[in-house]
Amino acid sequence: MSTDVALKRPKTVSSQPEERLDWKKRKAEIKEANKQRKEDKLIKQLEKQKQQEAAERAKLEQSQSKKGRPYTVSVALPGSVLDNAQSTELRTYLAGQIARACVVFCVDEIIVFDEQGEDVKSVEGEFKGVGKKGHACIQLARILQYLECPQYLRKWFFPKHQDLQYAGLLNPLDSPHHMRIDEESEYREGIVLDRPTKQGKGSLVNCGMRKDVRIDKQLQSGLRVTVQLNKTQNQESRMFKGTVVAPHVPRTEGGLYWGYSVRLASCLSAVFTESPYKEGYDLTIGTSERGNHMDQTTLSPFKHLLVVFGGLQGLEASVDTDQNLDVTDPSVLFDLYLNTCPGQGSRTIRTEEAILISMSGLRQKITAAFSDVSNGS
Amino acid sequence: MSTDVALKRPKTVSSQPEERLDWKKRKAEIKEANKQRKEDKLIKQLEKQKQQEAAERAKLEQSQSKKGRPYTVSVALPGSVLDNAQSTELRTYLAGQIARACVVFCVDEIIVFDEQGEDVKSVEGEFKGVGKKGHACIQLARILQYLECPQYLRKWFFPKHQDLQYAGLLNPLDSPHHMRIDEESEYREGIVLDRPTKQGKGSLVNCGMRKDVRIDKQLQSGLRVTVQLNKTQNQESRMFKGTVVAPHVPRTEGGLYWGYSVRLASCLSAVFTESPYKEGYDLTIGTSERGNHMDQTTLSPFKHLLVVFGGLQGLEASVDTDQNLDVTDPSVLFDLYLNTCPGQGSRTIRTEEAILISMSGLRQKITAAFSDVSNGS
Ligand SMILES: C[S@@+](CC[C@H](N)C(=O)[O-])C[C@H]1O[C@@H](n2cnc3c(N)ncnc32)[C@H](O)[C@@H]1O
Ligand SMILES: C[S@@+](CC[C@H](N)C(=O)[O-])C[C@H]1O[C@@H](n2cnc3c(N)ncnc32)[C@H](O)[C@@H]1O
Repeated sequence: MSTDVALKRPKTVSSQPEERLDWKKRKAEIKEANKQRKEDKLIKQLEKQKQQEAAERAKLEQSQSKKGRPYTVSVALPGSVLDNAQSTELRTYLAGQIARACVVFCVDEIIVFDEQGEDVKSVEGEFKGVGKKGHACIQLARILQYLECPQYLRKWFFPKHQDLQYAGLLNPLDSPHHMRIDEESEYREGIVLDRPTKQGKGSLVNCGMRKDVRIDKQLQSGLRVTVQLNKTQNQESRMFKGTVVAPHVPRTEGGLYWGYSVRLASCLSAVFTESPYKEGYDLTIGTSERGNHMDQTTLSPFKHLLVVFGGLQGLEASVDTDQNLDVTDPSVLFDLYLNTCPGQGSRTIRTEEAILISMSGLRQKITAAFSDVSNGS
Repeated sequence: MSTDVALKRPKTVSSQPEERLDWKKRKAEIKEANKQRKEDKLIKQLEKQKQQEAAERAKLEQSQSKKGRPYTVSVALPGSVLDNAQSTELRTYLAGQIARACVVFCVDEIIVFDEQGEDVKSVEGEFKGVGKKGHACIQLARILQYLECPQYLRKWFFPKHQDLQYAGLLNPLDSPHHMRIDEESEYREGIVLDRPTKQGKGSLVNCGMRKDVRIDKQLQSGLRVTVQLNKTQNQESRMFKGTVVAPHVPRTEGGLYWGYSVRLASCLSAVFTESPYKEGYDLTIGTSERGNHMDQTTLSPFKHLLVVFGGLQGLEASVDTDQNLDVTDPSVLFDLYLNTCPGQGSRTIRTEEAILISMSGLRQKITAAFSDVSNGS
């Protein structure tokens, strides 16, 4: 019977020595489980931390992409302003003043319009749609393009030309896309070189550095391109690596000012109708001493701002000669028609002065327009 | 008894026939009195009206004298900026740009300071206290003075001088005190003529009109004077009549911009210490790309504003060469040290550009400062 009893004993109780081992195991197992749980918790914490970090990184990236400038500024003026200069040298100098004024205020597009109302299309120079008489327009446009082009690319894009005879008198633009040879920069302007490249390999580009840049695409030689250089470069390699990006990328993603494009317009109305932006200009400002006092004006955010200046005779003259325009009062053409220098001490302000004065006044209003938005959202 | 009764009759009643006459008289008298009263009333009304009109006139006059500008604006810059020009012609043109920039913003005084730190005093040119090496200073000052002088006075005040060799290239200032011959104006600049004048009669002044002006005082011939022309002139007379006023009167009473004076300073500190205003400058602004973002700045009303610009090397260089200054940081010299072009698209803004840009930004703040006051009082 005792055996029964003994038999009734639960196995676990009867096999004490083994049980002891089991307990140890258990303890170890429990320990292990606890450790595991702790580890899981840690992992979860780490994961959460990672997620938070990722979110933060995303936020940072977002804010970094926010540092990109979402809008553009265009300035239009009649080429005839050059005829207002008193010598060939000063004609060139005046063009340079206009280029610098636009660069100081980060203008993305300069439109030179023909005020003489020549409707004849020609292909003189590299430009279309401007009559032969409009040579001031072509010369102004050429000097503007010359100055905008980084120095190391000029020999390719600007062969000798009498319009550029006094280019030596021009003050440099000193804009951020005019890099010195050893300057480090994520972006650079370059020219696609005429070098045989193996199938599947991209073209070589001269970006004004000590080595050429191998890009991701095969492009026609002689093209001017904007190159984004890879973040890490093999220092041993005979060339740098980079990818071709749209010219607006340094502005929209890097928030950098990247020079201006130049456009010729055959008349004032073509300034509006031939906009390179699909949507056109969504904020247009005409300037005149007969405009509204600018101090009372505030701007709303815009995508593409256009600021238009007149020549010696003001925008009235530009309107008069434009066969597409029936109006006589220029103010009806614009969202805003502004006197940007109320109380002026000279009877007349020259166009090249008016650009600096007006853009300086508008700069503050543009800043205010966009900082309000970022506060609001 | 009846006579008694009769006697008791009051005289007035008893003498009826006469009374009738009296009544007529009375009526007439009353009529007269009423008329008188009406007239008195009318006169009083007229007087009241006159008083009101006088009050209104006084108010108007007050407001007209309010239209006078109570404050001055001075601009200082180093003469060395001329050395930054690439040809003799452009050197002259640059001086003209500076003159025009100051006139557009109604600057009353331009101070040209010597940045080269020459402490030697000399009397070269018409100027004192500037070393021989500081020729850029003297040339700049001379061109500024030449341009400020009304055209009809230049032949007297500016004999041929090589500093003015290229004066033909200069754009006119077109400021309100540069009158055309038949232009009507309360004030005019003139030169006292070398003509014998009878005892008790004032000198004759050439004010660039078809007739000379007889002024109220006898002054030394050759003096440049500001003349206030009498409101009514005898058209038959062989000359106009006027009085000599202080040069600030067209500004302080007429609210007109009346050109600038030019001052040479042997170093930056002399710009402050040699102020022509007894009280000195009560608001001083230094300009630099390393200054504070101007958008957040508001100005309080002032009497004499001074805005100082640096040359090629900025105000740091001007401070370094000034033996009277122990500081190295220019900002400590000024009430405000401002970046007037935040976000500039060129690495460097030239001084002549910075004047237009800065004064355009400040113009709005100056207007605001003074319109707040007139609202408040
Ligand atoms: C020489 S001005 C034209 C003067 C012309 N007599 C007129 O009355 O319009 C050349 C250009 O400078 C600009 N401008 C001149 N003064 C201005 C002012 N106070 N406000 C805005 N723009 C001005 C305008 O674009 C003008 O067409
Ligand atoms: C060629 S800049 C001087 C540049 C010099 N490298 C510097 O860093 O100051 C000449 C003058 O223009 C004015 N200036 C240039 N940029 C300016 C800015 N962003 N704000 C205010 N003034 C400026 C200053 O008076 C400066 O001394």
